[in-house]
Amino acid sequence: MLHAIVMAGGSGTRFWPASRAALPKQLLPLAGERTLLEDTVARLEGLVPPERVLVVTSARLLDAARRQLPQVPESGLVGEPCKRDTAPCIGLAALLVSRHDPDATMAVMPSDHVIAPAAKFQDAIRQAAALVEAAPGRLVTFGIRPTYPAESFGYIQQGAALAVAPGAAPAHVVARFREKPPAQVAAEYLAAGDSLWNAGIFVWKAATILAALRERQPDCLAHLERIAAAWDGPDREAVFAREFAAIKGISIDYAVLEHAADVVVIEAPFTWDDLGGWSAVARQRGVDAEGNTIVGRHLGIDSVRTIVHAAGDHLVVTMGLEDMLVVHTPDATLVADRTREETVRKVVAELEQRGWQEYL
Amino acid sequence: MLHAIVMAGGSGTRFWPASRAALPKQLLPLAGERTLLEDTVARLEGLVPPERVLVVTSARLLDAARRQLPQVPESGLVGEPCKRDTAPCIGLAALLVSRHDPDATMAVMPSDHVIAPAAKFQDAIRQAAALVEAAPGRLVTFGIRPTYPAESFGYIQQGAALAVAPGAAPAHVVARFREKPPAQVAAEYLAAGDSLWNAGIFVWKAATILAALRERQPDCLAHLERIAAAWDGPDREAVFAREFAAIKGISIDYAVLEHAADVVVIEAPFTWDDLGGWSAVARQRGVDAEGNTIVGRHLGIDSVRTIVHAAGDHLVVTMGLEDMLVVHTPDATLVADRTREETVRKVVAELEQRGWQEYL
Repeated sequence: MLHAIVMAGGSGTRFWPASRAALPKQLLPLAGERTLLEDTVARLEGLVPPERVLVVTSARLLDAARRQLPQVPESGLVGEPCKRDTAPCIGLAALLVSRHDPDATMAVMPSDHVIAPAAKFQDAIRQAAALVEAAPGRLVTFGIRPTYPAESFGYIQQGAALAVAPGAAPAHVVARFREKPPAQVAAEYLAAGDSLWNAGIFVWKAATILAALRERQPDCLAHLERIAAAWDGPDREAVFAREFAAIKGISIDYAVLEHAADVVVIEAPFTWDDLGGWSAVARQRGVDAEGNTIVGRHLGIDSVRTIVHAAGDHLVVTMGLEDMLVVHTPDATLVADRTREETVRKVVAELEQRGWQEYL
Repeated sequence: MLHAIVMAGGSGTRFWPASRAALPKQLLPLAGERTLLEDTVARLEGLVPPERVLVVTSARLLDAARRQLPQVPESGLVGEPCKRDTAPCIGLAALLVSRHDPDATMAVMPSDHVIAPAAKFQDAIRQAAALVEAAPGRLVTFGIRPTYPAESFGYIQQGAALAVAPGAAPAHVVARFREKPPAQVAAEYLAAGDSLWNAGIFVWKAATILAALRERQPDCLAHLERIAAAWDGPDREAVFAREFAAIKGISIDYAVLEHAADVVVIEAPFTWDDLGGWSAVARQRGVDAEGNTIVGRHLGIDSVRTIVHAAGDHLVVTMGLEDMLVVHTPDATLVADRTREETVRKVVAELEQRGWQEYL
């Protein structure tokens, strides 16, 4: 059976002050009316029933995730006691779904990307699941056709093409995974045309990824197995906290994918945006005639190419602004040159350094 | 005896959103810890006792003024039922102080200017009072030596010099009053060197200004006399509302000063700033090494020549700003190109037009 694993433990700092330690990007309605997490789970409707959705977030976000996902049963919500990157997260999910479904196929996905339309996403996941059924030892990834020489994404170089059904998305053997490249290298990838952005979405058998972890990350898997063994007993919380903390954090890409033999990449037939900053929000929400993107109550006078994001009934007035970013929240406001949105993270680092915890 | 008349009915819109209809400039601590009104009354300490201070504000600001001026007796607070410019305000004050002191001398002053030091201000007022005692029909004004070709002030051209005591401020007969000039004309005044900015501060006998109003504005004075006659009776409020509303608004300059024979101007020996906008606030409060002026909680990253004014514990973070203005209040925030601070008034006009009364 197909299970969906939604990774929702991220703690992005690019959307401060809208995003906070206790309310990160995936829990915010950045791209529309619903939060990114709500959208991610809604996108599964008709593909995976809620009882086969497993949302793995951090313990302190569990309550917020629970409130946003009333359709997911309590057993489908896992709160990691600490951050350990994607391999431990995915390994634990594989163990948990395998308990009742040893032949489980997992579709693993981030919770903070914008993907549309849902039907094409579901088609692609079904296509991947079929590829896995045909060759159970196979790991399927998804790649996004690059539109610019991005430095902030990993790349997947396509090897030999696989035969696919008419109308299905192109699928290739993965020639190699490539780390986030400098601009010059990214431009070469773009020119060559055979590399895709790694979307961080995967489909595989739980048994396959567990076998790979057993081979490549035996310590990690041993800790995870102790957690899974205690899962239905009275010591779950204590064992989870102790054993998970003892794991060395590592991504599934480094831990498994880069070393695996049979990896396939499907070129995503859906649109994809990792919403890496406010300009991505503007792309998703659209701009008005003056190039402005406004969320909230706003009065603009001679303001162009400006993003305004205000909470509640607070009024933001902008006058004579060009390429600016104004984010208002009840306790903190950011006003920034929009071309520097990449450095919003510096603000969070600076606040931490000053000990201004209440704004984090 | 010397009485101080503090005109506090202004409803400036240049400091929106910090200033509001219910909390205009004079009631805000724009230049320091105290509000401009508090500073204005404190400046009189030692010159005029609180029981001879008359604060004339608008009825809806009366409570706020009362809270800021606990030292002023209730009889020293007057709330105009509507706005009628300075001549009716001053005429009413003259009638009220004359009731118990027919020979009263009045020092009339705005409540929203920054003046320092207090000792020099008091010296100048005493000098003016002496000029009035020497020639009771005389009207004394104060002029500020221009430092740039301002278009936003009226000018007073100096005529023949008066003999003054050693150390006293220069005093001249007024040759003429000049309206707010266009830039070219202002530059000519500045070059000629014989014109001063009209500070809107006056010293005269109550009887003298009443005689002038009787001659020049008999209707206005008739209404005011009906108000004064009812002042100590049960109908004060009703008569005040009815008669004051019936007066045609006019400034004391147009009504009297421009037509009077014996007008003297003292060149102010104190520093003066009418605090016409946020840049004036920055002048008063000073700037840091990056040219920023910060009031409130702020974190600046690569921001220069920027003014930040935040209320309470709200944190404002600025990143990559140059010559910007950020004013945060609990329900509204203004972010503006600082070079356009003159047009902050447009914001208020636009809010009125949209019917967004709650932010005015």
